[in-house]
Amino acid sequence: MTAEPGQRIVRSRLEQEAVLIPPRHVTETIEVLTSHESVRRFIPRGLDDGMLDAILIAARSAPTSSNLQAYSIVVVQDRAHKERLAQLAGEQQFIAEAACFLLFCADIGRLRYISQRQGRRFGADTLEMLLLSSVDAALAMQNALVAAESLGLATTPIGAVRDFPRTIADELALPRGAYVVAGLCVGFEAPGARRGVKPRLPEQVTVHHERYDTGGLEDGIRAYDETMIRRGTYAGRQLSAGSGPEHAGRQYGWAEHTSLRCSEPGPDAPALLGRPQLRRDLEECGIFFD
Amino acid sequence: MTAEPGQRIVRSRLEQEAVLIPPRHVTETIEVLTSHESVRRFIPRGLDDGMLDAILIAARSAPTSSNLQAYSIVVVQDRAHKERLAQLAGEQQFIAEAACFLLFCADIGRLRYISQRQGRRFGADTLEMLLLSSVDAALAMQNALVAAESLGLATTPIGAVRDFPRTIADELALPRGAYVVAGLCVGFEAPGARRGVKPRLPEQVTVHHERYDTGGLEDGIRAYDETMIRRGTYAGRQLSAGSGPEHAGRQYGWAEHTSLRCSEPGPDAPALLGRPQLRRDLEECGIFFD
Repeated sequence: MTAEPGQRIVRSRLEQEAVLIPPRHVTETIEVLTSHESVRRFIPRGLDDGMLDAILIAARSAPTSSNLQAYSIVVVQDRAHKERLAQLAGEQQFIAEAACFLLFCADIGRLRYISQRQGRRFGADTLEMLLLSSVDAALAMQNALVAAESLGLATTPIGAVRDFPRTIADELALPRGAYVVAGLCVGFEAPGARRGVKPRLPEQVTVHHERYDTGGLEDGIRAYDETMIRRGTYAGRQLSAGSGPEHAGRQYGWAEHTSLRCSEPGPDAPALLGRPQLRRDLEECGIFFD
Repeated sequence: MTAEPGQRIVRSRLEQEAVLIPPRHVTETIEVLTSHESVRRFIPRGLDDGMLDAILIAARSAPTSSNLQAYSIVVVQDRAHKERLAQLAGEQQFIAEAACFLLFCADIGRLRYISQRQGRRFGADTLEMLLLSSVDAALAMQNALVAAESLGLATTPIGAVRDFPRTIADELALPRGAYVVAGLCVGFEAPGARRGVKPRLPEQVTVHHERYDTGGLEDGIRAYDETMIRRGTYAGRQLSAGSGPEHAGRQYGWAEHTSLRCSEPGPDAPALLGRPQLRRDLEECGIFFD
């Protein structure tokens, strides 16, 4: 979907949701945070001097659990290298068009090295360490994204790097114990590349007070389906015609699209998410847990 | 460690690392990002009107994989409730002193509900979905942290909520398929609570160009150990005297501290990290994967 002629592009979720916040609490930073939109068309222009340095020190300033800093970042700017990674990440050619492609890795390998260096036996081949290191990588990526957008750059996070973790690890010469959690395209956007910020599930669905409350869930999903259908988000992107009688009259919105991506494969449900082989893939990267 | 009398507190990593970035690229946002410091002492003061709204819409604006929005946030402000959670998260009393405690949950349960609602069988009980939802929660948390700090508030992320996932899930009435990835204290800091930003591993250790390169690793670790020892980070916090002959003359810095936290338990190595029971704990929360 692109914006129809004359249709105004909404650039901020503060406007989209008509949130009432005293102006003194709308910092420049909060304007940046609430204006995030993934942009997938870039112009061929490298970053200005200093931009990458600013993005990287912001990324390295993210919080990290127990100061383990269990992540690494690989910065890819070489055109041929970006092309290969674009192919490995689901043939998303725009990755190669971005000025740089940052790859955020969970890095348990460095911790294993530190244990050996200090004469001890590494003892944290656990699910916890996989989660902790993946979260460390995610926090660093989010800081990089926010820093880049504050500089007027466009970004797109890429989860498809988890499709072929071992191949990407080889491409980046990652040590054993590291894998790429997510990539981040950073560059100057092409004119007309923005569609406006994507609406989010209503706050009543994702935010709860004191205790989780499903009271607003159904109304929230229905309202969100209507919003997303009205916006045309799924026009031309339907995963299934839903042709069976049980689908008659069913609206194709977020709930239908999401259920198709998360459900067992069937005649009308392609298994698009879930990556059932990921554990084996991570073992090939030297990541093990009980 | 607290700052010694007369010792100046360094509030920004831009200053700490003497990074040279053209001033036009040092946005207000990048100043906020590079000034993050966990603060563990708060004054008894609630948030101003509108602050929480701004923090929450920033959190909900974070990127989310495939727009699944596989996370939920529980906002805890009730004093007695905060006290109970402070006990469950490693008896960290300052959690109860913060104006609010935000809990960021990976939420696969909502996706399972959506599948059932649409008449399908959920098929994403996979490691990938656990990682994806945990990353979604982490990205939302990081946006909340950055928004709060841009408002002049102090924050502390809390990973110890993963010590007893089931008990915390019960306390928050989480549905099956959800668990708390991290908590975030948000409040007004007490005078003198800041110690200055914690130095990070040198860029040569965590950032690589085109391909991962361990060439700077050893020099980087040695330099970081010296920085952290000089700063007094581990004074009074040593996990082990390292009394055996193999430890004679060894400096207690980041490498030694980290190896003690990640190594198999032994006479001088307490198993402090790794949470070997986490997979079973998550199963008790209704999170399963092959």
